[in-house]
Amino acid sequence: MEIELQNVKGTKDFLPNEQIIRNKIISVLRKNFENYGYLPMETPILNSFDLLSYKYEDGAEILSEIYKFQDQGKRDLGLRFDLTVPFCKVIGLNQDLTMPFRRYEIGKVFRDGPVKLGRAREFYQCDIDVVGIDGRAIEVEQMLMAKNTFLELNLPVYIKWNNRKLMSGILSYADIPENLIDKTISLIDRLEKISYKELVFEFSKLNVNEEKVKQIMDLFNKNLNEYNELFKDSQIQILREGLSECNELNDLINDLDLSDSCVFSPKLARGLSIYTGTVFEFFDKQNRISSSLGGGGRYNRIITDFMDNGQSYPAVGLCFGLEPIYAILQSQEKSSFVDVFIVPMGTTIECLKLATILRNNNIKTLVEMSNKKVKKSFEYANKINIKYVVVVGSNEIESGQFALKNMQTGEQVNVTLPEMLEIFSKI
Amino acid sequence: MEIELQNVKGTKDFLPNEQIIRNKIISVLRKNFENYGYLPMETPILNSFDLLSYKYEDGAEILSEIYKFQDQGKRDLGLRFDLTVPFCKVIGLNQDLTMPFRRYEIGKVFRDGPVKLGRAREFYQCDIDVVGIDGRAIEVEQMLMAKNTFLELNLPVYIKWNNRKLMSGILSYADIPENLIDKTISLIDRLEKISYKELVFEFSKLNVNEEKVKQIMDLFNKNLNEYNELFKDSQIQILREGLSECNELNDLINDLDLSDSCVFSPKLARGLSIYTGTVFEFFDKQNRISSSLGGGGRYNRIITDFMDNGQSYPAVGLCFGLEPIYAILQSQEKSSFVDVFIVPMGTTIECLKLATILRNNNIKTLVEMSNKKVKKSFEYANKINIKYVVVVGSNEIESGQFALKNMQTGEQVNVTLPEMLEIFSKI
Repeated sequence: MEIELQNVKGTKDFLPNEQIIRNKIISVLRKNFENYGYLPMETPILNSFDLLSYKYEDGAEILSEIYKFQDQGKRDLGLRFDLTVPFCKVIGLNQDLTMPFRRYEIGKVFRDGPVKLGRAREFYQCDIDVVGIDGRAIEVEQMLMAKNTFLELNLPVYIKWNNRKLMSGILSYADIPENLIDKTISLIDRLEKISYKELVFEFSKLNVNEEKVKQIMDLFNKNLNEYNELFKDSQIQILREGLSECNELNDLINDLDLSDSCVFSPKLARGLSIYTGTVFEFFDKQNRISSSLGGGGRYNRIITDFMDNGQSYPAVGLCFGLEPIYAILQSQEKSSFVDVFIVPMGTTIECLKLATILRNNNIKTLVEMSNKKVKKSFEYANKINIKYVVVVGSNEIESGQFALKNMQTGEQVNVTLPEMLEIFSKI
Repeated sequence: MEIELQNVKGTKDFLPNEQIIRNKIISVLRKNFENYGYLPMETPILNSFDLLSYKYEDGAEILSEIYKFQDQGKRDLGLRFDLTVPFCKVIGLNQDLTMPFRRYEIGKVFRDGPVKLGRAREFYQCDIDVVGIDGRAIEVEQMLMAKNTFLELNLPVYIKWNNRKLMSGILSYADIPENLIDKTISLIDRLEKISYKELVFEFSKLNVNEEKVKQIMDLFNKNLNEYNELFKDSQIQILREGLSECNELNDLINDLDLSDSCVFSPKLARGLSIYTGTVFEFFDKQNRISSSLGGGGRYNRIITDFMDNGQSYPAVGLCFGLEPIYAILQSQEKSSFVDVFIVPMGTTIECLKLATILRNNNIKTLVEMSNKKVKKSFEYANKINIKYVVVVGSNEIESGQFALKNMQTGEQVNVTLPEMLEIFSKI
């Protein structure tokens, strides 16, 4: 080799053992998305750089993480870094879409950022979004969908939830000036990741003294009943709205028997400032990994701003993180992926015909074709974890009786073709 | 809007109506790949530019079509332009893979080239390949798989097939010098796309005169029996090998009853010079589009050269073209994608519970949540092509009787929940 063979930093190959598990996860996600009425959509990975950077100011961190280049026609292009910007573009380009519009997209996104555990430079996002519905019912339905989908993945989650209006309202109540509220919310969102000392230092940069920090921390350590009591006569409109939305959502959570899985978490902000109301995030109940497995929330402004046509586009959506989900599920027991290995003894044509019958019955079938001896064929079947092996000579073809060997138990049975089909229909 | 909203040249969005059909195609491909024992694998889109360009000389057309850029660490990267180079890389990086190794990969590739009908800048390739098996049986099995897969897509194909050794042999027989054989094969491959006059002109650039061109054209217009007769005493080894491989493959085609779908086509070369023996290409039997729907062949040298470790890596693979397949199938009848639309009349919570039961039975279910009136709800169901609508008030909840309306026939039936499940289990 003249070149050093390696993968690009922050990317990896998924070999069959791994990809089988990833495909299973994706197929459970798709099935659930579709059962909840979300329709598949696909947008290009290549985008104009102008579109990708449209909503961000020069110097924004995400801009430096966009892979940027020119095509032969000297157009400035970039690789998409999420599925939300392309989604907004589609709404903008297709003004005749029937609202409400639900779609899901499962696709790769790219970020030229720091690489660490669970953060690659090329990774999947699995998003569902609906435009055109306000209110709590659709929010709780998405939370319900997420809970049931994770259950089907055999990965029970708890759902932290909160409301961005409530957060802003509490900060107004604590006399934090309007222009500092977004920055303060970011700090509160990071509370569990930074020390108290750092927190006080960060707040001091916003001219918030330690006494005020203590008051804020106290205000964000209450439950819903305490907020209802504390704020019942508040004149701050966003606080009243946020609290009322929280109570509505809480009632729906109780009515739908979701309370065992849901935790009201007043410090949860979900980073991005796009969110305008309810936010939620999913965590492994067994705490095998600490980072979230996905999350979402309501964002009523971003598509409305993007469209800028005087109409309102309320939206709510969520994202499943394939990578953290896979990080947990990759250690699950490997299952066999090929059902049967047919080893012809001078009967290749007959075996290809036999294989066609099995395959037409959706039995995953391999035919030996590299002139391996019988013993080597059994070794190969073991190595790549095939369930059954059948050696087929002219006797078997003439008699119609096949010796089917179960490679896990070592058991061997003599069966006709219909009996073989019967056995496979049960596995 | 401050920016002009448009897709990048050579890319497009696939809205749900389109994506539903594309997903169906991909799911038929996957099922068949897996039934034939090919395992899923996935490689990154980002690759080092060195890897992508490793096998090509400076100035090669494909090099100018690679999207090339640097990451923040100043590494030269490129977007993959096929799935074969990444496949070779995986074989090189995982020398402990059990051979024969079969994998499939369905993924996006990128080419910054001319845009025309059926040629985009971002498109899917759907590849199966097996390394470690020589001989005709695996080749005919791939042709069989392709035929059956296209049949399941309701898109019967005929398969043109040929052998590159035979082509080289015939040209040696016609006294074309060794160093011109690849170029001559390219010309013959394009015979049906260029005029006789152009052909003579192109050959003249290779110092081949018109008389010789006529002789070559005559030599490439024969059937297998004529070749057997003509070349039976030939001393040209590659000609004898090619002819013998053609006869072997032809026998297998007859034995497996594939002869109705297969056409021996001595002018078929499949462009790329990577092929070393059998080549084949799939075409719509109804000729709705003239370009091929995919194809493949044997390439015994490329991985062997790439590995350069003294071992031999015979390989055979094929590629399905999602874009031409979709171009034919996109006009098929649109099917409904949502099974039932539940319209609550003050019963949102009960309807969400009802919907959960339906979804657990894999019934695609939507619940109305945007405060549409009943009439508007029926209009919405019609617009997005939902099969059934059920309006649910407190009477329905109390009685357990639901009026299920079929939106295609207009028929309405009164059913209990178990009866409703029964109806949906049949569709």
